[in-house]
Amino acid sequence: MNIKQKISVGVLGATGSVGQKFIQLLEGHPFFELTEIAASDRSAGKLYKEAVNWILSTPIPENIANITVKGCNDTFVSKLLFSALDASVAGEIESNLAERGHFIASNSKNHRWDTDVPLLVPEVNPDHLALLKSQEYNGGGIVTNPNCSTIGLVLALKPIHDAFGIEALNVVTMQALSGAGYPGVSSLDIIDNVVPFIAGEEEKLETEPKKILGAFAGDHIELADINISAQTNRVAVLDGHLETVQITLRKKATIEEIIDSWENFTSEPQRLALPFAPIKPVHYFTEAKYPQPRLHRDLDKGMATSVGRLRPCSLFDYKFVILSHNTVRGAAGGSILGAELMAARGFFS
Amino acid sequence: MNIKQKISVGVLGATGSVGQKFIQLLEGHPFFELTEIAASDRSAGKLYKEAVNWILSTPIPENIANITVKGCNDTFVSKLLFSALDASVAGEIESNLAERGHFIASNSKNHRWDTDVPLLVPEVNPDHLALLKSQEYNGGGIVTNPNCSTIGLVLALKPIHDAFGIEALNVVTMQALSGAGYPGVSSLDIIDNVVPFIAGEEEKLETEPKKILGAFAGDHIELADINISAQTNRVAVLDGHLETVQITLRKKATIEEIIDSWENFTSEPQRLALPFAPIKPVHYFTEAKYPQPRLHRDLDKGMATSVGRLRPCSLFDYKFVILSHNTVRGAAGGSILGAELMAARGFFS
Amino acid sequence: MNIKQKISVGVLGATGSVGQKFIQLLEGHPFFELTEIAASDRSAGKLYKEAVNWILSTPIPENIANITVKGCNDTFVSKLLFSALDASVAGEIESNLAERGHFIASNSKNHRWDTDVPLLVPEVNPDHLALLKSQEYNGGGIVTNPNCSTIGLVLALKPIHDAFGIEALNVVTMQALSGAGYPGVSSLDIIDNVVPFIAGEEEKLETEPKKILGAFAGDHIELADINISAQTNRVAVLDGHLETVQITLRKKATIEEIIDSWENFTSEPQRLALPFAPIKPVHYFTEAKYPQPRLHRDLDKGMATSVGRLRPCSLFDYKFVILSHNTVRGAAGGSILGAELMAARGFFS
Amino acid sequence: MNIKQKISVGVLGATGSVGQKFIQLLEGHPFFELTEIAASDRSAGKLYKEAVNWILSTPIPENIANITVKGCNDTFVSKLLFSALDASVAGEIESNLAERGHFIASNSKNHRWDTDVPLLVPEVNPDHLALLKSQEYNGGGIVTNPNCSTIGLVLALKPIHDAFGIEALNVVTMQALSGAGYPGVSSLDIIDNVVPFIAGEEEKLETEPKKILGAFAGDHIELADINISAQTNRVAVLDGHLETVQITLRKKATIEEIIDSWENFTSEPQRLALPFAPIKPVHYFTEAKYPQPRLHRDLDKGMATSVGRLRPCSLFDYKFVILSHNTVRGAAGGSILGAELMAARGFFS
Repeated sequence: MNIKQKISVGVLGATGSVGQKFIQLLEGHPFFELTEIAASDRSAGKLYKEAVNWILSTPIPENIANITVKGCNDTFVSKLLFSALDASVAGEIESNLAERGHFIASNSKNHRWDTDVPLLVPEVNPDHLALLKSQEYNGGGIVTNPNCSTIGLVLALKPIHDAFGIEALNVVTMQALSGAGYPGVSSLDIIDNVVPFIAGEEEKLETEPKKILGAFAGDHIELADINISAQTNRVAVLDGHLETVQITLRKKATIEEIIDSWENFTSEPQRLALPFAPIKPVHYFTEAKYPQPRLHRDLDKGMATSVGRLRPCSLFDYKFVILSHNTVRGAAGGSILGAELMAARGFFS
Repeated sequence: MNIKQKISVGVLGATGSVGQKFIQLLEGHPFFELTEIAASDRSAGKLYKEAVNWILSTPIPENIANITVKGCNDTFVSKLLFSALDASVAGEIESNLAERGHFIASNSKNHRWDTDVPLLVPEVNPDHLALLKSQEYNGGGIVTNPNCSTIGLVLALKPIHDAFGIEALNVVTMQALSGAGYPGVSSLDIIDNVVPFIAGEEEKLETEPKKILGAFAGDHIELADINISAQTNRVAVLDGHLETVQITLRKKATIEEIIDSWENFTSEPQRLALPFAPIKPVHYFTEAKYPQPRLHRDLDKGMATSVGRLRPCSLFDYKFVILSHNTVRGAAGGSILGAELMAARGFFS
Repeated sequence: MNIKQKISVGVLGATGSVGQKFIQLLEGHPFFELTEIAASDRSAGKLYKEAVNWILSTPIPENIANITVKGCNDTFVSKLLFSALDASVAGEIESNLAERGHFIASNSKNHRWDTDVPLLVPEVNPDHLALLKSQEYNGGGIVTNPNCSTIGLVLALKPIHDAFGIEALNVVTMQALSGAGYPGVSSLDIIDNVVPFIAGEEEKLETEPKKILGAFAGDHIELADINISAQTNRVAVLDGHLETVQITLRKKATIEEIIDSWENFTSEPQRLALPFAPIKPVHYFTEAKYPQPRLHRDLDKGMATSVGRLRPCSLFDYKFVILSHNTVRGAAGGSILGAELMAARGFFS
Repeated sequence: MNIKQKISVGVLGATGSVGQKFIQLLEGHPFFELTEIAASDRSAGKLYKEAVNWILSTPIPENIANITVKGCNDTFVSKLLFSALDASVAGEIESNLAERGHFIASNSKNHRWDTDVPLLVPEVNPDHLALLKSQEYNGGGIVTNPNCSTIGLVLALKPIHDAFGIEALNVVTMQALSGAGYPGVSSLDIIDNVVPFIAGEEEKLETEPKKILGAFAGDHIELADINISAQTNRVAVLDGHLETVQITLRKKATIEEIIDSWENFTSEPQRLALPFAPIKPVHYFTEAKYPQPRLHRDLDKGMATSVGRLRPCSLFDYKFVILSHNTVRGAAGGSILGAELMAARGFFS
C-alpha cells in the first residue's frame, strides 16, 4: 500500500504506560504522523517531556518531547485519535470526540460491548469494521481493542475455529506486570511470588472471544457459541502473557491439521502488507520448552502469537501454550494495526 | 503420643537439596534421632560439613556437621532410612536396603508404582500402609512420597472426593524452583520468564492422585476413577507450588459444603497429634488474592495446603487455587510425617 | 530483667509497612502490651483489620485486628508510643505528643538532628539516652532510630572505632525494596534491574554515624571525626541491606584484631538480656561468599549484623561486607530494643 | 571503510554463551563472514544446531545452524579466529593456532598478561596493537579482550585520564548473571538475593586498567600508575554491569570539564566509522536515577558506556556510576570491534 501524505494522529492518555508505548511505536510510522498529545488536566499545558515519567528503554522521540500536552476536551485537528485513557474517564471522552467527528481507536474496555462497536483484531475479524456504518456518531466512530490477554489467544484460535469449530475453551494465564500499568504491581507483591487474581480479567477472557470470533450480522455481531472458562494469574515477568489453553472441537482434527492451520494462517493485514502486520500471525514451536515470554515476546515485531506444546488432552480434545506481547500486540501495536487497516480501506481520506 | 526412646534414623542422598531439607527438619525431632548420613561415593568418607554445599538459611546442625558420610551400600544400624536419592540410583539401593531389613521412606519415583508399595499422604490414605504386609522384603519395606506437585493437591481433593466424588480433574501448575533441585534451573532461564514445561511432571500429576485416592484392596490399590489432565509450568518462585484446579463432581455440592469439607477435614495424623501434622491440613482463604506462595507457603510449619478462590466454573463444576510448600510438605516434611505415623503404629519397635 | 506488669504501648502510623512490622514484632512481647493504634484521619474510627492492607506473611494478631484505630491527635493512655509516621507529618505530631507527656520512639528523620534527641542504637550509644534529661518536654521525650542503612553499619563499626578509631569510611549499599515502604518501588522498575539512586539516603549515611558514634557531652553529642562517603543503590531484594565498606583507622590493627573485636562485642542490651537483643550483635562469616541477604537477614531474630570478607584494601586500610535486616534491626525491631533499654532503666515506671 | 571481499572468520568455543553471542553478532557483518565453528571434542562432528543449547532470543542464523562443528585442534582456513574458549583450555589452543599463522581475538584471561599481547579496547589503546610486531608467532598473533567488568570502566576513565590523570580508583560492581556463563548462577542463589563475591574478579579489575591505560613502549606496555581497589557483587540482573566509581585526579578538574571530556570523547573506531563502533563511546545522563541496566545496556548497539551521577566525593575527588553491556561491549562485541580495527589496518589482507 502506498500513502501519499501521512495522516495526522493524536494520542489520548499519552503519559500512561500504554500512551508511552503508542508514542514509541508511532515514531517513524509510514502512514501516521503523531502531532497531538492529550492527557489529564494535571498534565495539560506542559511540554510532554515535563509531563511524563518516561519508563521505556528507548528515549522520548525528539519531535514529541517538546509538544505541548492538550486536555482531552480540547479541539483536535487529527481525524484519528488513539486512546490509552483510563477506563474511569474513557467512556465519555471517547463518545464526545467521536461525536465531534473523530475516529477513536481505543484500548479501554468502556465501549467494547456497545452493539455497534467492533472489537477488532485485524487478522481475525476485519469484516467487523463494517459495524462502523451503524454507529450514529457525527462522521466519526469508535473501534476497540480487546483486553491484552484476549488478543494473542484469539489469533491462535481463529484458524482452528474456522476449520474445525471450537466448542469449549479453557484458559489459564500467567500474565506480565506491564499489563497492570505503571507503577502497577508493587515489587514487594511479586518478587518470589505469584498473585492468583487479576480484578475483572477473567470476565473479559470469558466473553470477548465470543464477540471477536462472532459473525457480522449487519448492525451487530452474533456471538460465537463457545463455552469458556478462564483463570488469571500475575507472575514476575515484565512483558508477555503466557497462557495454557485447552479446546474441544466440533469437528475432529489431527495434530498435523491444527499445526497446518496455524502455519498457513494469513489474513487481510498480511495481504495488504500493513506496516505493523506480522509476517506470520502464528508461529508454532516444536521444542517442548517453548514458547517463553522473554525469548519470544518480541517475535515478528512483537505482533505475532507464539504457540507450542500442542498435544491431546484427556478432558478436552487438545491442549497447548500460547504467548503474546501484551503491550505491543495486546495494546498499542494492535490498535495501530487496526488503524492501518482502516487507513487502507480509506476511512481517513 | 509418647516416645520413650528416640528412634535412630538415617538419610540417604544427604548432600542434595532434599537431603539437606531432611537434615534441617529432623533437628530436634521428638521421635527421631538422625545418626547416619549417606551419599554418593564421591562424598563417602568425608565429614558431612565438607561433603555438602549447604544452601539453606539455617546453619548445618552442629551434631550433624561432623558426622562421617557413609556410602549407600554400607551397613546401617537405623531401622528407618529416609531416602532423598536421585531416581537414577534410588531404585536398586532402596530395594537392597529394604531386603536387608530397613524401612525406606522414599522421595524418589522409582517404587511409587510397585503394586505393594504405598504412595502415602498420611492424612489421605493412612490405610494404604497396610500394603506393607504384602511386601516380601526381609523384615523391611518401602513407603513412597508422591511427587511434590501432587501432595498439596490431593490434600485439598480428599475431603471433596470423600463427600462428593471427583469425576474429572484439571490442573495447571506454577511450580517453584526448589522443585528442580540444586543448582537446578539457571537464573538466565527464569528471571523475567516462565518455562511452560517440566519433564515428566505432567505424567505424575495425571496418575499419582488415582493411586493415592484409590481404595486399599488387600494386596493392592484399586485406582480411583478420575479423569485427570495436567499442565505444568516453572515460575520465578523459590518455594511453594501454586496450582489452578478445576473439578467435576459425581454428586452435587454447594460452595459452602465444599468449604466446610475443607475446614472440617482432619485425619489420623491430627488425632495422633503427630509432631509434623498440620493443625488444619487445609486452610481456606476468603480474600480473592490469596493464597500466594511467599505469604502462605510456611503456613502451619509448611505442612498445610492453602486454598482460595473457590467459584463455579462454566466447564467443570468448580474451580479454585491451591498452594503447598514443595520441599516441606511436598518432600522431606511429608516423608517425616509418614514415618511418624509408622512410628505411632509401632513399625519401628 | 523481670517485668511485673506489662507496659501499655501504642503505635503511630500503624497501617504502613513499618507500622505493620511493629504490630507483628510486638505480638507476645514480654514487656509491652500493644493497646493503642493510630493512623491517618482516613483510617481513624475503623477497625484495624479494615483500615490496613496487611502485607506480612504472618496474620494480623487476633487481639489487634479488632482494635479501633485512633487519630494521631487523639488522647493516648500509653506512656510509650512507637512512631512509624511518615516524615511529612511526624515532626509536629511527635513533638505534640511528647509535650503531652509521652515518650516517642520514632523511626522518622524529623527529630534525629535535634541537639537533645538521642539517635539511639542500643548497643552502640546507650549513654546517649541521658540526653533525654535535657529535653524540655513536659515529662515526655523523643528518642529516634537512625536510617535503616545506618544501623547495621554502625553496629559493625562500633567495636572497631572503640579499639582503633575510624578516620575514613567509604560505603556502597545494595538496599532492599522494603526500605522504600509499600507499595514503594514498582516491579517494572526493579526486575532485571538496579536503580543507582535513593533520594536523601546518601546524606543520611554520611552524617548519622557521626552522631551515633559521637561522645555524650552533657546536653549534646560531640560528633565523631570521621570522613564519610556513601553511594546507595536499590536492588531486587525483598529484605536486607548489603553494604560494601572500606575504612581507614587511626591506630594499626590486624585482621585478627578486628575479627576479635566483632566476635567479642557485647553491650548493655546483651548484659541485660533484653528480649530483642541479639545474642551476638555482630556475626563474622569466614566463607568468601557470605553474608547474603536471603540467607542471613533473619540471623539472631533479624537483630544481628552479619559481616564477611574482611581483607586489606589498597586505598583504605580494610574492606569488608555487612548485612542487616532493614525493617527489623533497621526499623521496628531497633526501636523496640531501644524501648526495652528504656524500660530496664525505669523510664516508664 | 570499504571492504571488497568479506574476510572469512571462525569462532572457537562456539557452543558456550559467549560463543553464541559471537554467532549472533556476526550475522550479516559487513566485513566478516563466519565460516568455521569449533568447540570441544564432545561437539565436534555434529551440526551446530545439534551441538548447541541455544539460549539467545534471536534464532540461530540459518546459514550457521547446519555447519559441522570442528575440533579446536583441527585445521582452519580463516586467518581470523574469535576465541570464546574456557580459560581451562584456551591458553594452549590459542598459542598453537597463532603459531600456525592465525590471528586470535580472545576473550579468555590466559594471555592477557603476556608482555607482547595487547589488552585491547579499541577506543582506548589502539596503539597497543603495535605490540603484535613483537610477537614471535609464525605470521599469526594474539589479541585479548579485558574482563567484562573492566571494559566499560576504562572507556569512561580514558578521557579523564588523558586530560587530568587518574591517581586513585575505587570501584564497586553490581554484575549481571550472564557474566557467569550458562548455566552459571543457580536461580536458587540469586532470586531475592545478592552474592558479594565473584571468584578472581576483583584481581582483574585491580590490574587490567593499568595495562589498558598504560603507555606503549616498543615491545611492552608501561603500566599506568593508578592505585586501584575493587569490590565485586553479583545481582539479579540478566545483562549489564553497573559500577560505582570514585576517582582522585592528578590535576584539578571541574564537573563540567569531566562531563565535557566524556561528551567529546571519540577515537579511531569512530573516525574509521567501524561497524561495531558506538557513535559516542560514553553517554552522560543528567537524571539522578540513571543509568540503569535494563534501560540502558543496549544503548548504541550495546557498545557504549553509560555514565551518570557525577558529583564531588568527600574521600576522593569525584564519584559517579557507569553501566556497560557485559556480553556485547564486554565480550563478543568488543572483540569484533577490535578485529574491525585490525581489518581496517590491513592485518588480514
